[in-house]
Amino acid sequence: MDVRAAVAFEAGKPLSIETVHLEGPKAGEVLVEIKATGVCHTDAYTLSGADPEGLFPAILGHEGAGVVVEVGPGVRSVKPGDHVIPLYTPECRECEYCLNPKTNLCQAIRPTQGRGVMPDGTSRFSLDGRMIHHYMGTSTFANYTVLPEIAVAKIREDAPFDKVCYIGCGVTTGLGAVIYTAKVEPGSKVVVFGLGGIGLNVIQGARMVGADMIVGVDINPAKRAMAEKFGMTHFVNPNEVEGDLVPYLVDLTRGGADYSFECVGNVKLMRQALECCHKGWGTSVIIGVAGAGEEISTRPFQLVTGRNWRGSAFGGARGRTDVPKIVDWYMEGKINIDDMITHVMPLERINDAFDLMHRGESIRSVITF
Amino acid sequence: MDVRAAVAFEAGKPLSIETVHLEGPKAGEVLVEIKATGVCHTDAYTLSGADPEGLFPAILGHEGAGVVVEVGPGVRSVKPGDHVIPLYTPECRECEYCLNPKTNLCQAIRPTQGRGVMPDGTSRFSLDGRMIHHYMGTSTFANYTVLPEIAVAKIREDAPFDKVCYIGCGVTTGLGAVIYTAKVEPGSKVVVFGLGGIGLNVIQGARMVGADMIVGVDINPAKRAMAEKFGMTHFVNPNEVEGDLVPYLVDLTRGGADYSFECVGNVKLMRQALECCHKGWGTSVIIGVAGAGEEISTRPFQLVTGRNWRGSAFGGARGRTDVPKIVDWYMEGKINIDDMITHVMPLERINDAFDLMHRGESIRSVITF
Repeated sequence: MDVRAAVAFEAGKPLSIETVHLEGPKAGEVLVEIKATGVCHTDAYTLSGADPEGLFPAILGHEGAGVVVEVGPGVRSVKPGDHVIPLYTPECRECEYCLNPKTNLCQAIRPTQGRGVMPDGTSRFSLDGRMIHHYMGTSTFANYTVLPEIAVAKIREDAPFDKVCYIGCGVTTGLGAVIYTAKVEPGSKVVVFGLGGIGLNVIQGARMVGADMIVGVDINPAKRAMAEKFGMTHFVNPNEVEGDLVPYLVDLTRGGADYSFECVGNVKLMRQALECCHKGWGTSVIIGVAGAGEEISTRPFQLVTGRNWRGSAFGGARGRTDVPKIVDWYMEGKINIDDMITHVMPLERINDAFDLMHRGESIRSVITF
Repeated sequence: MDVRAAVAFEAGKPLSIETVHLEGPKAGEVLVEIKATGVCHTDAYTLSGADPEGLFPAILGHEGAGVVVEVGPGVRSVKPGDHVIPLYTPECRECEYCLNPKTNLCQAIRPTQGRGVMPDGTSRFSLDGRMIHHYMGTSTFANYTVLPEIAVAKIREDAPFDKVCYIGCGVTTGLGAVIYTAKVEPGSKVVVFGLGGIGLNVIQGARMVGADMIVGVDINPAKRAMAEKFGMTHFVNPNEVEGDLVPYLVDLTRGGADYSFECVGNVKLMRQALECCHKGWGTSVIIGVAGAGEEISTRPFQLVTGRNWRGSAFGGARGRTDVPKIVDWYMEGKINIDDMITHVMPLERINDAFDLMHRGESIRSVITF
């Protein structure tokens, strides 16, 4: 079938809106009509050429929501008409990882996903006979896409696509880091580095689970109002702190953070996030993606005296199990997504969404089909 | 009263056997007759002058066992005649740390302990009117010492002092890191860096809790036989591995260690210990003490893909609660201490114990009084 898609032909160039060919779903695969997709920093990272694993040409996009149109042989967990969110972290429920309660990093289709193809080793997308790569196993910058059955989460049908698509990445990454990775307890003191979309979702996750103190750290004072809306209780602008930031944060939290989250991808902030944690039990979670080859450092004494250094990918969430719950939380008003969707536009304007992101003028732009 | 003690007058010099004056216990303190004490690397570290917090003159020693002789006003938890192990990590059961189940780092007397004095700010030891510092709150290189009540663990009376003194530091540090810090589960794959006394106790801890695979890593092949006796299932000599050690260990453990322990204090090994952990859930615990100012590093991707970096001090054990249990385990034959006590000697030969340690010829030397 013919589908409309934004194609990344090469690194560093704008996306090109094309009509590409999409083959139907093979065994264990589903065809999904994408109704909406967010545009995320990870898409921009790959498009920039900085991602050493980036492949071109490709159809980017990994934060979508849509409707199952057709299923291939053997698919049993979803049927045509089901509303779904594509999962770049699938959940096969059979691999060593899915069977270990400590991780969400299903490895069932990892090798082929990394090579930009479906689990059978081929792509469903082509243009004038030229193969186009899938991206993160999702390729949501197209009005139809094909996904493995294990890479779709079935969600309730009354959830609005142009909001819950954000649960496909940003919301779950931030909220999940609090709930599934760190398991923040009521009464905790939390410090959040970076008040972009991920940081806001960490903040509302911390509020949802009953944190007492939610400190936001950002050099941009314009981020303050929005962060307070989502639950931030204290704002710290490192440029306005006299002396070192770490002791300032330790004082502010009366001994250090019970939990800290790095939502920027800056290795210096990752160190500060660890070191502002409370001696004895503070846990720091790295969410941001650092540049290729960059390293984190600290004195081992920081760990020997009881701090824990961890990381989180897709918020530690198991997609098919946890994403539908997060959609419910949104529909029940427990979390706010609407105020983070700052721009909505058609596919034809997708390059504007990247421009808005690069200029820091959007929290999340959503493309609707 | 007059006591016999090994006094460290200055850094880098041998200890001097002296008759020093010891004041009796004040309120909340107990006088303990030390019957035996181990000589540990930490004593040697401080004596060498490398410890930036080292104070002189001091009576070193922190791995003792003895009998309560007298108690000061208000002491209720022990009485004369009780057998005890001094605790350099006390357990007051009242401070913010003791009341948090995530840590064992009681802070009740931390400031004065760090200054080499008792909680009232004064020393009980003196020589010819000159104040001599306490060390780690314990000063077990003396046949009598004074300790805060919260810094003694009451143990069973049939336990031999010259064996269970080792539980005052080394045994608990290694065994506890497995049991209390990492909480290693049955069936786990464990990698241990460094097969000295701490490493051996990590190994027997891993065996005690039912680990499947216990890999020991050491450049000294002479350590192999003893480690196997304590439960090591695989020995790896990095000098005999072709190529990088980390992928070798990942292969050997079929995907990586569930838990790894660094028992040397080498920041390069700390990185290897983290990176040989299993993606998704591997936890690496730093036990060794690195040199002043040294730093650990890794790529944050190691953490974002699910590895955890932690540390352990005194094995995460709560002294008054857990040390008596470990003594029971020894008496019940669940753990082996006898084979690690390689030398027993009187106080007058304590400098020989340091020499044996520096030459790598002892696992643990014990001084008996």
